[in-house]
Amino acid sequence: MNYFSSDFKLGILGGGQLGKMLLSDTRKFDIQTYILDPSDEAPCKISCNQFFKGDLMDFDTVYNFGKKVDILTFEIELVNLEALEKLENEGLPVYPSPKTLRLIQNKGVQKEFYSQHNIPTAPFEKFSNLENLKSEISNLKLPFVWKCTEFGYDGNGVKVVRQASDLDNLPNVECIAEEMIPFKNELAVIVCRNPSGEIKTYPVVEMEFHPEANQVEYVICPARIDEKVAEKARAIALTVSQKFNQVGLLAVEMFQTENDEILVNEVAPRPHNSGHYSIEASYTSQFENHLRAILDLPLGNTESKVAGIMVNLTGAEGFSGDVIYENIETILGWNGVTPHIYGKKQTRPFRKMGHVTIVNDDITVARKIAEDVKNTIRVIA
Amino acid sequence: MNYFSSDFKLGILGGGQLGKMLLSDTRKFDIQTYILDPSDEAPCKISCNQFFKGDLMDFDTVYNFGKKVDILTFEIELVNLEALEKLENEGLPVYPSPKTLRLIQNKGVQKEFYSQHNIPTAPFEKFSNLENLKSEISNLKLPFVWKCTEFGYDGNGVKVVRQASDLDNLPNVECIAEEMIPFKNELAVIVCRNPSGEIKTYPVVEMEFHPEANQVEYVICPARIDEKVAEKARAIALTVSQKFNQVGLLAVEMFQTENDEILVNEVAPRPHNSGHYSIEASYTSQFENHLRAILDLPLGNTESKVAGIMVNLTGAEGFSGDVIYENIETILGWNGVTPHIYGKKQTRPFRKMGHVTIVNDDITVARKIAEDVKNTIRVIA
Repeated sequence: MNYFSSDFKLGILGGGQLGKMLLSDTRKFDIQTYILDPSDEAPCKISCNQFFKGDLMDFDTVYNFGKKVDILTFEIELVNLEALEKLENEGLPVYPSPKTLRLIQNKGVQKEFYSQHNIPTAPFEKFSNLENLKSEISNLKLPFVWKCTEFGYDGNGVKVVRQASDLDNLPNVECIAEEMIPFKNELAVIVCRNPSGEIKTYPVVEMEFHPEANQVEYVICPARIDEKVAEKARAIALTVSQKFNQVGLLAVEMFQTENDEILVNEVAPRPHNSGHYSIEASYTSQFENHLRAILDLPLGNTESKVAGIMVNLTGAEGFSGDVIYENIETILGWNGVTPHIYGKKQTRPFRKMGHVTIVNDDITVARKIAEDVKNTIRVIA
Repeated sequence: MNYFSSDFKLGILGGGQLGKMLLSDTRKFDIQTYILDPSDEAPCKISCNQFFKGDLMDFDTVYNFGKKVDILTFEIELVNLEALEKLENEGLPVYPSPKTLRLIQNKGVQKEFYSQHNIPTAPFEKFSNLENLKSEISNLKLPFVWKCTEFGYDGNGVKVVRQASDLDNLPNVECIAEEMIPFKNELAVIVCRNPSGEIKTYPVVEMEFHPEANQVEYVICPARIDEKVAEKARAIALTVSQKFNQVGLLAVEMFQTENDEILVNEVAPRPHNSGHYSIEASYTSQFENHLRAILDLPLGNTESKVAGIMVNLTGAEGFSGDVIYENIETILGWNGVTPHIYGKKQTRPFRKMGHVTIVNDDITVARKIAEDVKNTIRVIA
């Protein structure tokens, strides 16, 4: 297949920031792209060859869009799976496959998949709804983590339950109760795999949390952990990708327990926030490798040229409206600092508006600059 | 001025590959861009916010385009200078300034500028037309280099004259006769300067020629030359940029003579082929730094993360028509190899269709892979 400067068309479901960064690589290779997104203000509207406005959960919309393209991928998991399945059955390559997506979309099914394949994960129980969980609470060890199995996103749909009353006001939907395991580090490994079976992992990254707010502040590559633990994490991530028979990227989020065990938390079958550092730090970015993978091209080198740290840019509390990136000029003056602005015109508290990558030969210097970045730039209105 | 996700509009004259690579950074920062180009198939048509089709040499077209934007730049020097001057006089920031462009557009004026400012350059004489040169040829030392002063491009408008008859069939236009000085190396330094006067140089790059064909085959960063010579080259390039009062990038092409003198050959006031390696190898690419410079933002780090080598992808002889990048899949499998496809649908012999960057910690390894790339990929139809 001739992808380059040809009539070949890659379809992408979703036109957010992940798609936007992917388009930077489709443009580099001059590969035609069609995008489907519900919003007229989607960050992907520019840079794709054709933009279609439509509902990603609507069968007909997704199916008809799929009929226009030669290969179909997505940058968000919340898409109409039945349409993907029908398209795949009719011969359209859909990567990642709807079969994999079905195993991942529901957190209960995902956890059961790990158990079936002896992939280490925190013990859990599944409940068809909240009422069932409540009736069993006397048999559960407190505290535990409640997770709804579907449609959770960015912390939504997850709650630590320390006492029965913490369940009040949660939605009465299918859920799991997961044992809360003390961990030293939250890690992630991005795996890349193409249909021919070539497979590579990116280095292990570490999520550093704010000591008080308990929010991820920095994604750090490489993780500052023991080399043996890192090797174990990469090996487990490889296994997860292979068991899912994944094509494209798979971001595997993991816990490093206090005994240096690795437990898989959850996965995302697409470019991931934990891999944004790769644009500046890696030989081949996660986006380019996702593209290479779904086109069955050889995968690029996943190792790093330099250390990389990523800071998310989220809307500051108390500000809503036309966005202003306060002090962005200041941080641009520092070595190895690259802001990525996603192109959302309106900010609101905690909205993901962009990220900043800090690269340096010396990870300690990068970490110091990252802290200065975090304390300097503000997303206001 | 708030450039990011705002109503600010950057105008770019020219929509070719240089503009296309610049747009990758305007998208990253979510800066609005308007592009003017004569071709409906301009590589920039996608990724800009608004595309205007029109003649870059036409006063009204350029002037009216300029009235729509907040800052104006160009990616090609062949633009209507009078329109730029009028726009600048009316208060529009035009970077690089039309005054600088006027000094550069005419090679005779450019050479006189070097002489006036004691910038080392090969001795030359200027002639108002070819007939005048012919009448003086007995006073010139053969061989010399004939250059027409205007509208030359990529080897067009340059000829080595070894005997009087070599002047036959040359156009009867203003020209210079330049002393032919034996040189060891052809070097280039890209300088970046913003309106506030912050100025930085990229490392010296080396053009490696094919031993027989006498064509540039590889651009290599850093140049494999003595550190003292490199320092001299960077210092001279800095002076050239300052004397031109340049804003944005200035690519300074130089000769390293057999006595390790540095002679300035010519300059280009924009992103340049000799800086393409910077996308993968540098902390900040030449395109991002051009953007930062014309917006008067702090300049990014111009140093390299790793060694970089660039190979141009030009149309193979004997092929015209719908382009095919033969063996591109093969080279994608090699470490640190990134093709850039400019998006021209039709190839013809020697047409610039793209380039390939090879990066590696070890410049010797990079050079070996670059040779393999050169011998493997072919641009055919």
